[in-house]
Amino acid sequence: MSNASEHFTTTSEHQPTKPGRFVEMNLVDKVEFLPGLTFQPVLGENMLVNFVHFEPDTEAPVHVHVEEQLVIVVDGSFDFEIDGEVRTLSKGDLAVVPPWVPHGARTHESSCDEIDVFNPPRTTLLNLAQTQANEGTAPA
Amino acid sequence: MSNASEHFTTTSEHQPTKPGRFVEMNLVDKVEFLPGLTFQPVLGENMLVNFVHFEPDTEAPVHVHVEEQLVIVVDGSFDFEIDGEVRTLSKGDLAVVPPWVPHGARTHESSCDEIDVFNPPRTTLLNLAQTQANEGTAPA
Repeated sequence: MSNASEHFTTTSEHQPTKPGRFVEMNLVDKVEFLPGLTFQPVLGENMLVNFVHFEPDTEAPVHVHVEEQLVIVVDGSFDFEIDGEVRTLSKGDLAVVPPWVPHGARTHESSCDEIDVFNPPRTTLLNLAQTQANEGTAPA
Repeated sequence: MSNASEHFTTTSEHQPTKPGRFVEMNLVDKVEFLPGLTFQPVLGENMLVNFVHFEPDTEAPVHVHVEEQLVIVVDGSFDFEIDGEVRTLSKGDLAVVPPWVPHGARTHESSCDEIDVFNPPRTTLLNLAQTQANEGTAPA
């Protein structure tokens, strides 16, 4: 079997655990977590995706957590620090942050829109995300 | 402790399991998986992020898999199907696909750029992603 036909198989080994759903981000509440730093978390099963907006001159201080994190920049730019190394990231740049690796970010003149993906869901965002999953979206 | 100070804690309970890294997507090989359908997978620890480009009139047939999947549209649009329901998704739209839920997508006149996030890493993309993790990126 080719990789593509294996990839697109319809052979199901189990029943779905829950239905799928569509989410419109403009219906998801924006929570200002710190001044200039806005979060829109969306909850999956064992993942959480957080849409983050940084105003100019805004800092997410260096911190650590048990959850692994992927950072995807979609607009603007910011300086992102991984374990002491700082790079300026813009659209098309990613950061891969394993559990407990110190990291932080700050904008200067530009704003920045980026997507953080956490596995498992980041506990400090779970309450926000569960509210969203129950209220702000339409079921599939 | 406020939610923000809990979120940005520097109190580490464990050593990192591996170093972090920065990834430039324009250095990640583009693999044409089907005609018109291009993948750029990036591997985390227990997640895989796949940057997907659909040319116009391209189909990812309905399929199922054990991995949960989040779909984030970043440019253009496509018709996305979850368990028989089809919606047209564009920038700012997401689909949340739990394990074993049938789903597929197809473009018409427009192309589409979207990001698929899988937990755990989708097995059919693992070989592609491991090559990328070892070759196409600069370590932090």
